[in-house]
Amino acid sequence: MRTHITLDDLDDLAVGAAILGTGGGGDPYMGKLMTRAAIEAHGPVRLIPLDELPDAFNIVACGAMGAPTILIEKLPSGEEMGRALDLYERYTGRTLDALIPFEAGGINSTIPLMAAAKRGLPVVDADGMGRAFPQLEMETFNVYGVPAAPVAIADERGNTGILEVKSAAKSEWIARGLTIRMGGQSFIANYGMDGATCRRVSVPGTVSLALGIGRTMREAKAQHRDGLESLIEFFAGTHYEEAKVVGSGKVVDVSRRVQNGWSVGIVTIEPFRRGEEPIRIQIQNENLVAEQAGEILAIVPDLISLLDVDTGEAITTERLRYGQRVNILAVRVPPIMRTPEALDVFGPKAFGLDHAYRPLGLLPQR
Amino acid sequence: MRTHITLDDLDDLAVGAAILGTGGGGDPYMGKLMTRAAIEAHGPVRLIPLDELPDAFNIVACGAMGAPTILIEKLPSGEEMGRALDLYERYTGRTLDALIPFEAGGINSTIPLMAAAKRGLPVVDADGMGRAFPQLEMETFNVYGVPAAPVAIADERGNTGILEVKSAAKSEWIARGLTIRMGGQSFIANYGMDGATCRRVSVPGTVSLALGIGRTMREAKAQHRDGLESLIEFFAGTHYEEAKVVGSGKVVDVSRRVQNGWSVGIVTIEPFRRGEEPIRIQIQNENLVAEQAGEILAIVPDLISLLDVDTGEAITTERLRYGQRVNILAVRVPPIMRTPEALDVFGPKAFGLDHAYRPLGLLPQR
Repeated sequence: MRTHITLDDLDDLAVGAAILGTGGGGDPYMGKLMTRAAIEAHGPVRLIPLDELPDAFNIVACGAMGAPTILIEKLPSGEEMGRALDLYERYTGRTLDALIPFEAGGINSTIPLMAAAKRGLPVVDADGMGRAFPQLEMETFNVYGVPAAPVAIADERGNTGILEVKSAAKSEWIARGLTIRMGGQSFIANYGMDGATCRRVSVPGTVSLALGIGRTMREAKAQHRDGLESLIEFFAGTHYEEAKVVGSGKVVDVSRRVQNGWSVGIVTIEPFRRGEEPIRIQIQNENLVAEQAGEILAIVPDLISLLDVDTGEAITTERLRYGQRVNILAVRVPPIMRTPEALDVFGPKAFGLDHAYRPLGLLPQR
Repeated sequence: MRTHITLDDLDDLAVGAAILGTGGGGDPYMGKLMTRAAIEAHGPVRLIPLDELPDAFNIVACGAMGAPTILIEKLPSGEEMGRALDLYERYTGRTLDALIPFEAGGINSTIPLMAAAKRGLPVVDADGMGRAFPQLEMETFNVYGVPAAPVAIADERGNTGILEVKSAAKSEWIARGLTIRMGGQSFIANYGMDGATCRRVSVPGTVSLALGIGRTMREAKAQHRDGLESLIEFFAGTHYEEAKVVGSGKVVDVSRRVQNGWSVGIVTIEPFRRGEEPIRIQIQNENLVAEQAGEILAIVPDLISLLDVDTGEAITTERLRYGQRVNILAVRVPPIMRTPEALDVFGPKAFGLDHAYRPLGLLPQR
């Protein structure tokens, strides 16, 4: 059991977070660089298993908000997250005991580690999405009753805000508006809760999960084993259980734009196997649904990640381009993310999709 | 010298505030109703002359932000302003001693009175615009060095925010974005300052000015005198000095839309005198410039108000329509609003207009 995140972990973490990012969540590479600098300066970050979290701990979720396509052009200064946390503490009058990533995928797997290193705080080995999602209300924290407000928000120019909004969905709407006016990228801290609540409402073990994914890929490479097979085996030993390659092919079209503060679009993949129909993946920051000839291959909240055939690395939405050769890996989410109340918040309908959720490898849910 | 605002003053105030609103600032009628209820419940509001303001007083400017076209469809609950002030006090740790309207024109002449009545606070007889302007940075408070931040903001559903933004112009940009996401209408408190600062940076006597305009119009009507002539005489005795009817005619076209959170458009007036070229008035919430055959009749920051020929009442932008018969009244702003630093913030260039400012009745400024 890992008790600290050190410099040696950051490569594995970035590889795992990219896969959990399901195309979105921002490129973990940038977060890795910032976290490396913070750990070099302040030392390793203690990782607390979710079930060991003291009842009375003051915890807040944190990470970056915005369109990943903007993040790679508008570089963070590294101070934004700390400013949002300072503001959160000052506004609530609560001194934080630990941070929890609000999402396990993408850059937000590392941003809380960077901030925790600088503040000398531990990070909880869990998150509120079990992957990456594009909206602030798509959190198990919200599903299981933690108020989204207050939301502390900061940009790279030192502008900050505190929002007290009545619902999580409205917090998303208003914080997104603020983020757009801040240039499309901001850093937020919200879903403040105590340790007892955090244990009840979080997806457990997701920082370790990202590390495990990265380690599995690295070891497979070193031992000249098939990375995908090893990965599927690895998932089988976790509470995600089911992972599967649902398609392989060449990217032949990427239609993508920034709309309402998100990267949205469709990527079309021509299967390697001749005569097969093209596979279409619909995107809102993250990959939402993969379809082929009218059949659903995988659908949100299950994970859909595009992995480069040669390197095995996950390709984020903003780096997709014509000619890339990819395997489409789907992973089923753990039970806490498949309850009816969870699907209300981040199931297909929450994204305006007409299809019912069908958990990978299981019969359709009613 | 008036020491209190009572129920008897509200009609005059609304009439005067509509003229100072220069087409914008929101219909004072709605503010009047809310203020009437507050004064009935809590008693008259003490009015402090600007030059009698104690040095150490804690003062904040307040009012409504949004498109006036939205305000008449999305009715305020009356609690929003108080919630923004509560938040401002809680966030800054400062207990307020007095409120100052951030603008003297339109609904914002009355909103601070309503809030002051409820809190038992006095209102300063002054403001930061000397009229109505469409943007948060267009304040003499900003021109003469008061930081716009922090900005407390509240909507009618109980959602609130606090913004700490580096410049007044950026505060406008970000608060406007928040206001748009709050449905196009919000209530804000900002430009916190002490009494000594307030005396230096405010346009004096503008609450009394609005009352005086209303009284003048009412008395002229009762005495069957020409309201416009009386009004021009009245202005001559104030620090505004110069007022003039620059045109009269029938509204023949109103092109108006909500854009970026403002009501923008052009109104075309066909002069009563046959053969005269049409007069065009450009609008951004307020009337910005009146032109006829390439000649500027009046231009921002000077006031341009459209008065109904029959009733003498000012017609706000959102109530303009085909067939209305109007006099176009222009009023020169006082010297504190005509300095080069003031024109940088709310002169023609600040609105993207190509023309130089030419103060009504004076030679062009260089």
